[in-house]
Amino acid sequence: MNDSTLRLAVIEGDGIGQEVVPQGLRVLRAALEPAGVTVETTPFDLGAGRWHRTGETLTDEDMSRLAEHDAILLGAVGDPQVPSGVLERGLLLKLRFGFDHFVNLRPTRLVPGVSTPLAEPGEVDFLVVREGTEGPYVGNGGSMRTGTPLEVATEVSLNTAVGVERVVRYAFEQAAARRGKLTLVHKHNVLVHAGHLWRRVVDEVGAEFPGVSVDYAHVDAMMIYLVQDPARFDVIVTDNLFGDIVTDLAGAIGGGIGLAASGNINPTGAFPSMFEPVHGSAPDIAGKDLADPTATVLSVALLLDHLGHAGPAQKVRDAVEADLAERASLGARGTVAIGDALVAAVTER
Amino acid sequence: MNDSTLRLAVIEGDGIGQEVVPQGLRVLRAALEPAGVTVETTPFDLGAGRWHRTGETLTDEDMSRLAEHDAILLGAVGDPQVPSGVLERGLLLKLRFGFDHFVNLRPTRLVPGVSTPLAEPGEVDFLVVREGTEGPYVGNGGSMRTGTPLEVATEVSLNTAVGVERVVRYAFEQAAARRGKLTLVHKHNVLVHAGHLWRRVVDEVGAEFPGVSVDYAHVDAMMIYLVQDPARFDVIVTDNLFGDIVTDLAGAIGGGIGLAASGNINPTGAFPSMFEPVHGSAPDIAGKDLADPTATVLSVALLLDHLGHAGPAQKVRDAVEADLAERASLGARGTVAIGDALVAAVTER
Ligand SMILES: CC(C)[C@H](C(=O)O)[C@@H](O)C(=O)O
Ligand SMILES: CC(C)[C@H](C(=O)O)[C@@H](O)C(=O)O
Repeated sequence: MNDSTLRLAVIEGDGIGQEVVPQGLRVLRAALEPAGVTVETTPFDLGAGRWHRTGETLTDEDMSRLAEHDAILLGAVGDPQVPSGVLERGLLLKLRFGFDHFVNLRPTRLVPGVSTPLAEPGEVDFLVVREGTEGPYVGNGGSMRTGTPLEVATEVSLNTAVGVERVVRYAFEQAAARRGKLTLVHKHNVLVHAGHLWRRVVDEVGAEFPGVSVDYAHVDAMMIYLVQDPARFDVIVTDNLFGDIVTDLAGAIGGGIGLAASGNINPTGAFPSMFEPVHGSAPDIAGKDLADPTATVLSVALLLDHLGHAGPAQKVRDAVEADLAERASLGARGTVAIGDALVAAVTER
Repeated sequence: MNDSTLRLAVIEGDGIGQEVVPQGLRVLRAALEPAGVTVETTPFDLGAGRWHRTGETLTDEDMSRLAEHDAILLGAVGDPQVPSGVLERGLLLKLRFGFDHFVNLRPTRLVPGVSTPLAEPGEVDFLVVREGTEGPYVGNGGSMRTGTPLEVATEVSLNTAVGVERVVRYAFEQAAARRGKLTLVHKHNVLVHAGHLWRRVVDEVGAEFPGVSVDYAHVDAMMIYLVQDPARFDVIVTDNLFGDIVTDLAGAIGGGIGLAASGNINPTGAFPSMFEPVHGSAPDIAGKDLADPTATVLSVALLLDHLGHAGPAQKVRDAVEADLAERASLGARGTVAIGDALVAAVTER
């Protein structure tokens, strides 16, 4: 990226992905143009639509073309006609693994006006740093005697000190810049080998961050803490699978998956990072102007942060917060109307 | 077991285990004596205490002596001085695996008077059937270059058609006897091999239960459903690790881990089944008459069900329900006072 152009690869994907991404782009432009940055977008035709037409999920050529961009914005991919795993393993995870997105960043912040299923949530504001390239997600498994009564199927979780260390370090840095609390989530009393690796690395890296206090929760106990007292958390660091589970619960607590943003980040800059709402393609509501683009817009804020535009990122978040409060009093809005309101709010600020 | 004697192995364990188990036993006796059944108990010294004194967790001799009983009642084991994994792998999981407890049964029912963290829980009454002898819990993993910056650690999830089929069949039987709904929880879009095995088996066994409707939720999405609308579930069947996570969330929703009961069941009767509260030994409140024995008492109800004493089991559950309502209006009670109230209520009925 040079300072005045952001080359953005855009994967709208399927279903509501095609509605929320355009709103995210409008807000992105509104936030960056005053700073003198032009957004150049390249659309990528990836997802269920392409797979149905061509049988392709993500070719080597797609990967090289994507790699030429500063960042990727992705809406959502999938529809019920694609067999399970095809787009997950062949597209989403291929992107995360191929571009070495070892930090999967998922903030939860409950803002005024947003309803949560919890009776007394307290002040919820935490950040989950989910490992993105290891664990049970590596695709190392198989089956024998498949389809027979004697089938055996395996899934292998692979964890490396290098892989754990880099994400743990990132989490400590975030904690140091926030409220100075880090919670490791794992299940080291049962998954003793991976668990002991995570603990050791947290201890070792933690020694370099004396200002950050560290605690630990088993992933099962974490379920209880998150619904009983989510306000106690600041930064949570955890493995790929536990992170997947914890962040959906976090999303629900933070006002629903329509607001949950995520960044798949390679902090080294060796590959483009990818920003996407946590929600799926929601074919049931697609094409009806019903989808909430807020999760995509908040993912755009993460993108801005990642590219060093902290000011514009904050503008976007402030606009979202104001819009959510307004919606709480004035009533729900459609996809485009929310986009309109956010663009207006960002432009004003 | 002959009809008039129940030979019960009792593992009080550590911390509050030593307080809640005696109350569970009082209630068990009060429920069974009117039916002419005598409870003969054998205490087993197992847990952190024994480990500190002898270095032993569970010997072959312990296993053979335990095997001579009709069932096992366990309180809780562990204290902060025992390294992580020692008692979990060496005692708890050794019992579950050694006695082939392939059904881990965990009901959640939100009864009047009990407070839940959810603002609008609805009518919560579901049963989690967690697989107990496979998955990532098998202890098949390891590490190389351990303790170095080049460490690699693995955890292997092992799943067999035989193992999945028997627990899925059990879950369908439960669903058929309840509201006729079964939900499979897995993550088959990422853990494709294990996931496809689980799906196939649910499809196949489901064909034998035309009266049971089947649906599916990814474990991450399940987090959202459980806090947004837990009333929609009847029977949930899932693997060992997902079951661990889902049942702690279920416990929190159902009024907290102080009420969460569980049965580690071998339905064939080849080995004694084991009943235990989901909570731990809670050293911070141990010895203060503060622990709620309700989870243990509800585990006793599962034990009664398992041994064919449906009437006494229902009496125990009714007594608990009445006591919880009374506590909500008259205020909290100590461990022994709750035991007193439950014994009185069971005796009256
Ligand atoms: C779609 C799926 C592969 C993905 C995951 O499991 O990571 C999703 O649940 C997420 O959290 O982004
Ligand atoms: C203590 C631990 C081994 C156990 C488990 O993970 O199964 C506990 O969390 C439970 O749910 O009974």
